[in-house]
Amino acid sequence: MAEANDPIARMALQLSRLPGIGQKSAQRLAYYIAGMPLDQVKDLAAALWQGRKALRFCARCGNYAQAELCPICQNEERRNGQICVVRDARDVAAMERMRDFKGLYHVLGGTLSPMNGVGPDDIRIKELLARLSTEDVQEVILATNPDIEGEATAAYLARLIKPLGVKVSRISYGVPVGSDLEYTDEVTLAKAMEGRREL
Amino acid sequence: MAEANDPIARMALQLSRLPGIGQKSAQRLAYYIAGMPLDQVKDLAAALWQGRKALRFCARCGNYAQAELCPICQNEERRNGQICVVRDARDVAAMERMRDFKGLYHVLGGTLSPMNGVGPDDIRIKELLARLSTEDVQEVILATNPDIEGEATAAYLARLIKPLGVKVSRISYGVPVGSDLEYTDEVTLAKAMEGRREL
Repeated sequence: MAEANDPIARMALQLSRLPGIGQKSAQRLAYYIAGMPLDQVKDLAAALWQGRKALRFCARCGNYAQAELCPICQNEERRNGQICVVRDARDVAAMERMRDFKGLYHVLGGTLSPMNGVGPDDIRIKELLARLSTEDVQEVILATNPDIEGEATAAYLARLIKPLGVKVSRISYGVPVGSDLEYTDEVTLAKAMEGRREL
Repeated sequence: MAEANDPIARMALQLSRLPGIGQKSAQRLAYYIAGMPLDQVKDLAAALWQGRKALRFCARCGNYAQAELCPICQNEERRNGQICVVRDARDVAAMERMRDFKGLYHVLGGTLSPMNGVGPDDIRIKELLARLSTEDVQEVILATNPDIEGEATAAYLARLIKPLGVKVSRISYGVPVGSDLEYTDEVTLAKAMEGRREL
């Protein structure tokens, strides 16, 4: 069963394309799946495919959603005048795990990166400015990653938003420099929110 | 998107049921898949489900197969009079990665384990004896795992097969005691085959 086109090799190939799954673990997983009851494999495959199909982006904040708006934007109680700006939808999940922030989000869908040709028009900055003029926003909390691109994006946004008379803050360096929001623990994230400073 | 029944949570739940994938990595993978292009997720889900559906067991040796017989049993050149007995179909793959063994296999589908209620009738011993009477077999190489159950199974098979006038050998302790064949590197496996002793 070592042929490149056998079912187990095809499973392993697909699995090895996921992040953090090397060739060896992909093969190990493929053999495990080969030995799983049919209906369990069906549930797994269906969860991935149906799940991915069901997902779209919130028309307002850019978070993952199943309807026009994501559950957070649908929740009236979250309109507390704060918008937390993050890079990716998965950063929203990281912030939500903290259970501390009660406002809304805005997902940029990237960070400014001149080296990679990502300019202000390539991420959802226009959409953020539009929200500031239509929603009742007192504070924009910039929670992009504490790395070079995240910092540059935060500085750019601060320059853009402060003249509009909206308070702009940046999460504090409670988050270790150079790391990734997604992998930060809830306590550190909570500290970072608490120690945020106005820009 | 923290509800238990949202698509990402469902993906993560299914992924966390795979071995070696904890809750954190399941969630990370789910978010990654949520961001993958639709057609790539389709390929992944299809490889798992179609792959699992396409698999059955070789009618002769018990290895994974797509037809009546597995590719190894179909290959006339592999009938060299040797049958290598392993516990699982995935152990066949481990042996094949060694590229050293040119004979056939017999997959037991388990090892004797009185503690767990697994007796001689619960694994494919009857089928092995049937092959010894119909195929031209000079040597049975017992390659069950070098753990207690694997040793007990090998000893049991040796007692059963030797009276039939067939040479019975056991892979040598080149494989570290207490480990699992599946995770053994090719060189160690090759040494274990080379150093096999008659029982």
